[in-house]
Amino acid sequence: MLNREERFYLSIIPESAQLGIHVVIEKDVKIGENVVIGHNSTILQGSEIGDNVIIGNNCVLGIEPAVNLRMRKTKKNNNKLVIHSGARIGNLVSIYSSTVIGKSVFIGDHASVRENVTIGDETIVGRAAIVELNTKIGKNCTIQTLAYVTGDSILEDNVFIGPCVSMSNDKYMGAKSYDLKGPHIKKGSKIGNNASLLPGVTIGENTIVGAGAVVTKNIEDNITVAGVPAKKINT
Amino acid sequence: MLNREERFYLSIIPESAQLGIHVVIEKDVKIGENVVIGHNSTILQGSEIGDNVIIGNNCVLGIEPAVNLRMRKTKKNNNKLVIHSGARIGNLVSIYSSTVIGKSVFIGDHASVRENVTIGDETIVGRAAIVELNTKIGKNCTIQTLAYVTGDSILEDNVFIGPCVSMSNDKYMGAKSYDLKGPHIKKGSKIGNNASLLPGVTIGENTIVGAGAVVTKNIEDNITVAGVPAKKINT
Amino acid sequence: MLNREERFYLSIIPESAQLGIHVVIEKDVKIGENVVIGHNSTILQGSEIGDNVIIGNNCVLGIEPAVNLRMRKTKKNNNKLVIHSGARIGNLVSIYSSTVIGKSVFIGDHASVRENVTIGDETIVGRAAIVELNTKIGKNCTIQTLAYVTGDSILEDNVFIGPCVSMSNDKYMGAKSYDLKGPHIKKGSKIGNNASLLPGVTIGENTIVGAGAVVTKNIEDNITVAGVPAKKINT
Repeated sequence: MLNREERFYLSIIPESAQLGIHVVIEKDVKIGENVVIGHNSTILQGSEIGDNVIIGNNCVLGIEPAVNLRMRKTKKNNNKLVIHSGARIGNLVSIYSSTVIGKSVFIGDHASVRENVTIGDETIVGRAAIVELNTKIGKNCTIQTLAYVTGDSILEDNVFIGPCVSMSNDKYMGAKSYDLKGPHIKKGSKIGNNASLLPGVTIGENTIVGAGAVVTKNIEDNITVAGVPAKKINT
Repeated sequence: MLNREERFYLSIIPESAQLGIHVVIEKDVKIGENVVIGHNSTILQGSEIGDNVIIGNNCVLGIEPAVNLRMRKTKKNNNKLVIHSGARIGNLVSIYSSTVIGKSVFIGDHASVRENVTIGDETIVGRAAIVELNTKIGKNCTIQTLAYVTGDSILEDNVFIGPCVSMSNDKYMGAKSYDLKGPHIKKGSKIGNNASLLPGVTIGENTIVGAGAVVTKNIEDNITVAGVPAKKINT
Repeated sequence: MLNREERFYLSIIPESAQLGIHVVIEKDVKIGENVVIGHNSTILQGSEIGDNVIIGNNCVLGIEPAVNLRMRKTKKNNNKLVIHSGARIGNLVSIYSSTVIGKSVFIGDHASVRENVTIGDETIVGRAAIVELNTKIGKNCTIQTLAYVTGDSILEDNVFIGPCVSMSNDKYMGAKSYDLKGPHIKKGSKIGNNASLLPGVTIGENTIVGAGAVVTKNIEDNITVAGVPAKKINT
């Protein structure tokens, strides 16, 4: 086996780190104590990895945003990716720069989290779930497998997003340039699997949206809605 | 090129194996005859790969389950991943330990299969499809692209799951602790694309669920259902 | 660091290329000027990468199709993957051979594009979106995150596909062998998030399909449809 100096660690790594084979650590990366990083994972320039963080295999962390000619540019704020202590990152995960992952957060395999996102402590982001840019997610949320959290959204604390939930943030579907707005989901609400939330809708506190529902307008607190379009039901 | 001893093969590899560049094979891995493994793929400790298995590039196979503080722990049974002969595993795939992949199974690119899963011979798991823990899938099933097979589910033989089908297994959406139960889909049934199945529903034999339907209760054998919620239709 | 000769470049690489660590470039690959390739990415045999193309980390490009016993074989035409100038490919992306990616196309992280696909100039394929085989996509299209573009489909120019849109191409769901046919989406149409399109439907020009709609038959030009099944609405 190659010794440390022959691997591709361009930053200082604490002795307590356990690093897999073919790990790449670019420069200006900070690694806390007792960090584990799986094989073939890459930590890009400037990222900060807290104590006791566990990262799986084949991950790419700290990605700089990129666009083509037709895409809106993200604000260039030169911030780094920060992953707080005790977080667990799965395998084949991508996470962007300018994003903050809270303490003891779990990010599942194949998930992707974009730039300018904050994820509160102990929140779970399921496997293959995607969190787009400029979104704030509270503490103790559960975002299940293959759920799609669009950009410019707010999820308050203790929100549950079922598998395959879909959200959108552009009511003109690319036809006009305006300030995109995703859903605002208030604390304690639960969204059933494969439900669809339209741009800018607000879901009240402790409200339940049924599986497969299509939410086209704001929903009040403490009720249950279902159907296409979603309407209040007695439970 | 590096010779074998300088690569990261910590188990004994048959001469008949064709291994890509940057492949990592951890210890206690068993590799059959005529196995092909693509570049940058990792086979984790204890996995068993049968004869004539073909594995793509950038895969992670044999992953140990991990959880955060708020997630249920998986039963620790210390079993290994077993991939039987003739299976084809795509690229950028993740598969967990304690899972058995049958003969001539096809697993598409970007797919993920979790722990304590069995997949019957010749079944197809489409690209980016996800199979969660404790699920049994029969023989000759087709699970299409981006379909989500939740945990604690049963799919009998010859089941067809269309693309983007969504299932769930937790009727309280995280609010109570109970024995989670996914759908039970009986032999020969077909589920249309983007349909939603609620926790614990049974789909009868040779029944057809239309595209986009939301199945909220058990469905009898040999019928066709569609709509939100799904109802029997004449065909 | 290793020098170029000790890396795994089996083709001739221009001096202007910026290549990450652990990059694998197989033989008969053509690389244009000013190409950037991230760490751990693999360019498979015969691929052609145009000038100024930027490729992220952990990608697999130029994959040969593979099937199991129960899958239809793809036409073996021995064509290569061609990525035209200025395209940007994200991280953890898979793209097959016999496919042509147009100029300045953007392919998001975790996306997959199969064989015999053409993607027109400046089109955006969102993260974790999947484009299946034998599909033609025009110029200036936007295919959003987690959208599923099935095989044998046609998307004309300026089409907008919202996040999590689902399409299918097999009306018998595997029960019969026939010529599969995906949707034909005419120019300027917009499909809302999580809508479902059935096999072979035609969506007229400049038509809008609402979020969560299920399109079961052809839709005329210049109208808006919504609901399950989708019907014309006044807007």
